Amino acid sequence: MRLSKYFLPVSKEAPSDAAIVSHQLMLRTGMVRQNGAGIYTWLPLGLRVLKKIEQIVREEMNRAGAVEILMPTLQQADLWRESGRYEAYGKEMLRITDRHDRDMLFGPTNEELVTDVFRSYVKSYKQLPLNLYHQQWKFRDEIRPRFGVMRGREFMMKDAYSFDLTAEDARHSYNRMFCAYLNTFSRLGLTAVPMRADTGPIGGELSHEFIILADTGESAVFCDKTLLDMPAPGIDLDFSADLSAEVEKRTQYYAATEEMHDEAAFEALPEDRRVSARGIEVGHIFYFGTKYSEPMNAVVQGPDGQMVPVEMGSYGIGVSRLVGGIIEACHDENGIVWPDGVAPFHVGIINMRAGDEECDAACEQAYQALELAGIDALYDDTEDRAGGKFARMDLIGLPWQIVIGPRGLKNGVVEVKNRKTGEKEELPLADALAKVRPE
Amino acid sequence: MRLSKYFLPVSKEAPSDAAIVSHQLMLRTGMVRQNGAGIYTWLPLGLRVLKKIEQIVREEMNRAGAVEILMPTLQQADLWRESGRYEAYGKEMLRITDRHDRDMLFGPTNEELVTDVFRSYVKSYKQLPLNLYHQQWKFRDEIRPRFGVMRGREFMMKDAYSFDLTAEDARHSYNRMFCAYLNTFSRLGLTAVPMRADTGPIGGELSHEFIILADTGESAVFCDKTLLDMPAPGIDLDFSADLSAEVEKRTQYYAATEEMHDEAAFEALPEDRRVSARGIEVGHIFYFGTKYSEPMNAVVQGPDGQMVPVEMGSYGIGVSRLVGGIIEACHDENGIVWPDGVAPFHVGIINMRAGDEECDAACEQAYQALELAGIDALYDDTEDRAGGKFARMDLIGLPWQIVIGPRGLKNGVVEVKNRKTGEKEELPLADALAKVRPE
Repeated sequence: MRLSKYFLPVSKEAPSDAAIVSHQLMLRTGMVRQNGAGIYTWLPLGLRVLKKIEQIVREEMNRAGAVEILMPTLQQADLWRESGRYEAYGKEMLRITDRHDRDMLFGPTNEELVTDVFRSYVKSYKQLPLNLYHQQWKFRDEIRPRFGVMRGREFMMKDAYSFDLTAEDARHSYNRMFCAYLNTFSRLGLTAVPMRADTGPIGGELSHEFIILADTGESAVFCDKTLLDMPAPGIDLDFSADLSAEVEKRTQYYAATEEMHDEAAFEALPEDRRVSARGIEVGHIFYFGTKYSEPMNAVVQGPDGQMVPVEMGSYGIGVSRLVGGIIEACHDENGIVWPDGVAPFHVGIINMRAGDEECDAACEQAYQALELAGIDALYDDTEDRAGGKFARMDLIGLPWQIVIGPRGLKNGVVEVKNRKTGEKEELPLADALAKVRPE
Repeated sequence: MRLSKYFLPVSKEAPSDAAIVSHQLMLRTGMVRQNGAGIYTWLPLGLRVLKKIEQIVREEMNRAGAVEILMPTLQQADLWRESGRYEAYGKEMLRITDRHDRDMLFGPTNEELVTDVFRSYVKSYKQLPLNLYHQQWKFRDEIRPRFGVMRGREFMMKDAYSFDLTAEDARHSYNRMFCAYLNTFSRLGLTAVPMRADTGPIGGELSHEFIILADTGESAVFCDKTLLDMPAPGIDLDFSADLSAEVEKRTQYYAATEEMHDEAAFEALPEDRRVSARGIEVGHIFYFGTKYSEPMNAVVQGPDGQMVPVEMGSYGIGVSRLVGGIIEACHDENGIVWPDGVAPFHVGIINMRAGDEECDAACEQAYQALELAGIDALYDDTEDRAGGKFARMDLIGLPWQIVIGPRGLKNGVVEVKNRKTGEKEELPLADALAKVRPE
């Protein structure tokens, strides 16, 4: 993308009403624009990151055997009356009346709707296991939306729902999502720790939150340091195999959010393994058995001919919130430092003297070569001053920069800068292009 | 995708409440499930088609220089009070009150919101031209939703908005979208005819609808046959060049929807060129000058230092409606016949005897080879009877089928069937794989 044809409204000042660094940086880099309390437009740079996250989440859900669908944003109130949650959900649910005075709502989550889809089609245990997921905008009418996209009202969530015949099968589905989540967050450049969690309004008896550590985290968390050093299971994991060992390998270590914290158990850890920090919730998984299938009559015929309510779980990832979460975990004093997997562009090209024939030609060559290799590049072809170009490129945090100027070209070199390490190197253009190629 | 792990709830009967063929076929093939009047869940097969259309629309918008953003579904009523449309829009607008009693609405279109985004950032003519688009769910509270996704209430629209300094520049932006639309519909496998149209609640003085012909079309249309035979401009069109000749090449011929029809002008055509048919609107473009920028004070500084309201146009494509529109144009008595560009999978593999070692191995080989080549395949590995497998594969309408059975394998061949022509051929597996490769 050529910057002169792009829409990247970067601003110098940190806006006064943004309390945390990710919100400040998202506004300064022109990633989002607020349109109302907790409601945002995703501008081009922000949308690219959001789409990259969506795609990684999609790939890892598919790999774990979940099947993608897309449920609507608006739902009928009657479904929620069946489960008993319509009154229970409270003011966070945005209630709507249509022109025919029917009660509707903007979905804050989809247990009821997906259970209705399921019961319309699935009648036999032979059609199980089934895991349906979607990535769709949700609405929760938070009383005090804040922290930008980290606690918005309209937000993008990935929510998956598993259906099984028995509690044991359901536990296997839970474990599959547990492992898929670890792989997903790892690909996003994050270390997420699964912690025993309260089940809240979703309900159920078994639940884990996936938490990333950041100074600005919304809540206090406590865990064994061993968990921070443990790699994700990896994408070559066999999801049809028994995964309980993979799960227990982690759940054997202490990790809990504030509400579930057991000070005595934590104190029993050797002191150098006790991590007490702030955390951001980026995923939450639940096993809740027949909580929805029973009242909503989502039953299947078992091998013995009996009709039984299906065993369910649900699995959420805060896709839009992750954009803020990643920035909280990945920034420095000059701006964002995107992990490779989610960077809006992989390389920024800076033309130090736009209009100079030699500079223009070298930049053009670099830009075309990267495009041809399928590497996303943002080419700063504007006539802004060099200092402003450097600051802007650092601020938006692409993993690599290639700086092309007349002095270097005279010596046959360009400068390559790694945004994360700050390391700079002068190289011939061909070598620079090889250097920035993703592994 | 292996059918045994997929979710494809195909049904034999046409549902009684579906009045048109696309709606019937979408329900029978398990592409969508209705969740309320004019509100649908997109099941896996339907979602794949929707995503393919979205991606083609995205590529052609980008090629024409538009930049992708994503505006929220919910908007503040106050913005619509600025333009004067809040009261004017009537009952089709879904009005919502949040927990703080603020007036909001589910966006039926986005002229106001995008104008607000624009005016927050763009202050000078040097930042023009600009064309921002998004693909997002909209809501119009139709009094009688019908025809499935063709006239739903919650629907996916691509809407682009152009901003220019002068009326002349705006006309160029309009022409770019005009040509991009022709290319888009052509890639979707459709012949869309641009017709002079009424501007309705969007307003403005210049407008074209893009119409595809189908017996079940919602309105009568009239055009010169020449237009049906004219190819799209093509994706190597230079969008920075003057495109008026490309546009006039088409607008010189008679084409009008019922409301704009001029019987005398139509009768003046030679009889064999008069096409009187039913049409489905799949796109609509508008030039409306300063209708929104003036009341909303979206002004830029011109080269002479004066502040002037920006010249605008808007450009819609009914992305979810197109799924139905394509089926209306592309089906036969056995089911859907997807154009290559939007088919949910490119090839279906039918295992005639699942469980037979040789059949399983050959199918597996075919499936792996296609996946490796990046060709989407749906592998029917179920134990259903052959007749049912054939009928289901025809019904869902993938461009190619590879049928693998024990008799053929004995002779070293498999059967390749082209869904559109019905042509069948027996070939060694390697040749069959080469045959179905997309051009």
